[in-house]
Amino acid sequence: MNIIKPRTLSGFMELLPGKQIQFERMAEILRTTYASYGFAPLDTPIIEDAQILLAKGGGETEKQIYRFTKGDSDLALRFDLTVPLAKYVALHCNELAFPFRRFQISKVYRGERAQRGRFREFYQADIDIIGDGKLDILNEAEIPAIIYKVFKGFGLERFQIRVNNRKVLNGFYAMLELSDKSGEIMRTVDKLDKIGADKVKAILMGEECGLTETQADEILKFIAITGSNAEVIAALEGYAGRNEMFDLGLSELKAVTANLAAFGVPEANFAVDLTIARGLDYYTGTVYETTLLDHPEIGSVCSGGRYDNLAGYYIEKQLPGVGISIGLTRLFYVLDEQGLLNPALPSAPADALVLPMTAEPGAAIALAEQLRSSGLRVQLYGEQKKFKQKMAYANKLGVPFAVLLGEDEIAEGMCSVKNMVSGEQVKLTAADAAAHIKAALSEKDLPIILEK
Amino acid sequence: MNIIKPRTLSGFMELLPGKQIQFERMAEILRTTYASYGFAPLDTPIIEDAQILLAKGGGETEKQIYRFTKGDSDLALRFDLTVPLAKYVALHCNELAFPFRRFQISKVYRGERAQRGRFREFYQADIDIIGDGKLDILNEAEIPAIIYKVFKGFGLERFQIRVNNRKVLNGFYAMLELSDKSGEIMRTVDKLDKIGADKVKAILMGEECGLTETQADEILKFIAITGSNAEVIAALEGYAGRNEMFDLGLSELKAVTANLAAFGVPEANFAVDLTIARGLDYYTGTVYETTLLDHPEIGSVCSGGRYDNLAGYYIEKQLPGVGISIGLTRLFYVLDEQGLLNPALPSAPADALVLPMTAEPGAAIALAEQLRSSGLRVQLYGEQKKFKQKMAYANKLGVPFAVLLGEDEIAEGMCSVKNMVSGEQVKLTAADAAAHIKAALSEKDLPIILEK
Repeated sequence: MNIIKPRTLSGFMELLPGKQIQFERMAEILRTTYASYGFAPLDTPIIEDAQILLAKGGGETEKQIYRFTKGDSDLALRFDLTVPLAKYVALHCNELAFPFRRFQISKVYRGERAQRGRFREFYQADIDIIGDGKLDILNEAEIPAIIYKVFKGFGLERFQIRVNNRKVLNGFYAMLELSDKSGEIMRTVDKLDKIGADKVKAILMGEECGLTETQADEILKFIAITGSNAEVIAALEGYAGRNEMFDLGLSELKAVTANLAAFGVPEANFAVDLTIARGLDYYTGTVYETTLLDHPEIGSVCSGGRYDNLAGYYIEKQLPGVGISIGLTRLFYVLDEQGLLNPALPSAPADALVLPMTAEPGAAIALAEQLRSSGLRVQLYGEQKKFKQKMAYANKLGVPFAVLLGEDEIAEGMCSVKNMVSGEQVKLTAADAAAHIKAALSEKDLPIILEK
Repeated sequence: MNIIKPRTLSGFMELLPGKQIQFERMAEILRTTYASYGFAPLDTPIIEDAQILLAKGGGETEKQIYRFTKGDSDLALRFDLTVPLAKYVALHCNELAFPFRRFQISKVYRGERAQRGRFREFYQADIDIIGDGKLDILNEAEIPAIIYKVFKGFGLERFQIRVNNRKVLNGFYAMLELSDKSGEIMRTVDKLDKIGADKVKAILMGEECGLTETQADEILKFIAITGSNAEVIAALEGYAGRNEMFDLGLSELKAVTANLAAFGVPEANFAVDLTIARGLDYYTGTVYETTLLDHPEIGSVCSGGRYDNLAGYYIEKQLPGVGISIGLTRLFYVLDEQGLLNPALPSAPADALVLPMTAEPGAAIALAEQLRSSGLRVQLYGEQKKFKQKMAYANKLGVPFAVLLGEDEIAEGMCSVKNMVSGEQVKLTAADAAAHIKAALSEKDLPIILEK
């Protein structure tokens, strides 16, 4: 037969089973956490009509998109989960209850230049809350609680949810009569962490922005406001009463910070950060970024914000919303790369490997079924191999327990349970074996991410 | 703004939230059941190099495939999960432990002619066990147990797992000196259910097959063998000793049926059925089909079998395996279409909707968090609406409970829990409210499929 050398396309993540099991655990925490806040699971097609997907059109997106024809159809693969959500809500708006809360953890496609750590196929894990005409600020206030639960669920302590409000920023720029330059200014200010205050000031006073030194200083003074939530809000109160947009934004920011304790979010994991703007002009209110405090180089691992018009390209109806997105594939890749994935995490496909040591497999089959009925994941090993090879297989799989069943055990109504790490072996009834294994596994309720 | 009418491509399933929640429940049962037998989750890219995906080439598949170029790359979307598995195992064979057991529940793509109930994007839910050179018959014997657990998990009783062995069939045709025509004969015999014995006989004796009447009668007599497993096996013993392949197949069939009781599969859900061949020449041993006894028109809902060479196109290594596949999207569609989905199944995204009845939301936020910490899915409703509109929203969502928190309740340290179906309303502490709602939900552990 003609052999074709197998390969996986570059930019496409394909994990070995052990890593895949860890990835699934992260996805499961996301699903469970999102669902616990009343978000409905959603699943939209990966392929959409290209005209519809690109209704907004233009820019980087269009260059990166996977677009092709099939028969007469002009098709494209989705490049995010927001545009398909907009299409879905516009299409089904009469059948949905608003506010409509959905989560979607699915693959998206961007044909970026191949580069280490850049993926062309990757999972996004999104939630959005969509209102019909209006959406209460309480929804924006709830988002940090969800972000907190997710990262806490991953086992992290040292992360910070950074929050700002676009109305506060836009109102502030209006005070300085710089509204027409606010987009340019925000993109510049966004670089503060990377390039420092002096360079930001230089760019602001440069040709493109064209600010006076006074204006640039005002901006740098403004974004230098830091401290506890109460301190930042107090400083912002000093600007109040000069611009309506600013005052509205400030009242929103106060509403978002007011109930953090009730939402169970510690102050340590939350900060009002006036430097955050999010690049997209799309956001109109609260904006969110999340950083790992010991790994600022990773950048924001969960971002999003409030927008006023989700589906303007598809429907006349005004659909405001708030949402966040986690780039799960990239996050997993970076955590693995940095050695932050907990090496003690279970990576075996089974909790126990049942090894029949007799010619007749009936007793081993029944034992495996009994262990499964107690909730364990059990693999029955049926190959005719030497004992040493069977043990080598158990070790390669990484199963925590091997359960041996020979003539002696069958005669006694017992089985031998071998701890593959400690080597300890005990003879137990099937019911006791299940309890023994489950007790050992419950000690394995470990954080996914290890902080260093 | 220029409005583009939103639509979803035909042949692509996109469910409303209530149905999606039911779909997810089926997928979850598949995941849990597959995992309980020690299968590792696998996730391969949807896009592959077209040359690799089409290594086998030819036929219907190539016409239906979504194939396109991006830059210099000739790409295609996977049309099943078996070819990507072959690629994966060939590529990673030095890192995998054999037997390698994996499950994958993922979307595949076939550009079929649009037709009611035919999907171009659909989920397959596959398991496969791959051996390195050899694979014990015990793996083939285990498959019916897994199929049984899956359909039982869906709430079904009246289904049948039909099993045959290709070696038995091939050996039998060899006895009749019809080996060179066995493919044609099996494809004809496969139609028995649809067209009846007379027409099958006519085709067998027609130009294409060219059998004598004696040969055709022998075949019809053979495939007419029915009864209990013991009876069918006894009848097959009558043919033993005449052909080596047949004898080997018979011993495999005996091994597959011998331990059904130990595997927990009732005889009523299992039958040796000599008419089953599975169209594909790919299968070499045990073959499986699964039918809903009251809905034969749906056809097989879970099929598969034993094959000898998974990845011959990619690697010299001999990789025998056994696997089954469930066409989840089509199964869900048909069950829904036939009204077999349990209408009592939960379809709401939350177990409880918390309604703050005061201006300050703090107490309601804390209550919602407390209910969540007990494991409930809780949505906090933040919109400023009239009470009647809030209740209308709760009804449209289909949440089983609304939890009301007004000044009185807050003062008493209680909340009012309203059963949205019965209308009953009780005042409880947060802890009692959680217990009350959980107790009502546990009554909702319902079958997904209702048999009629």
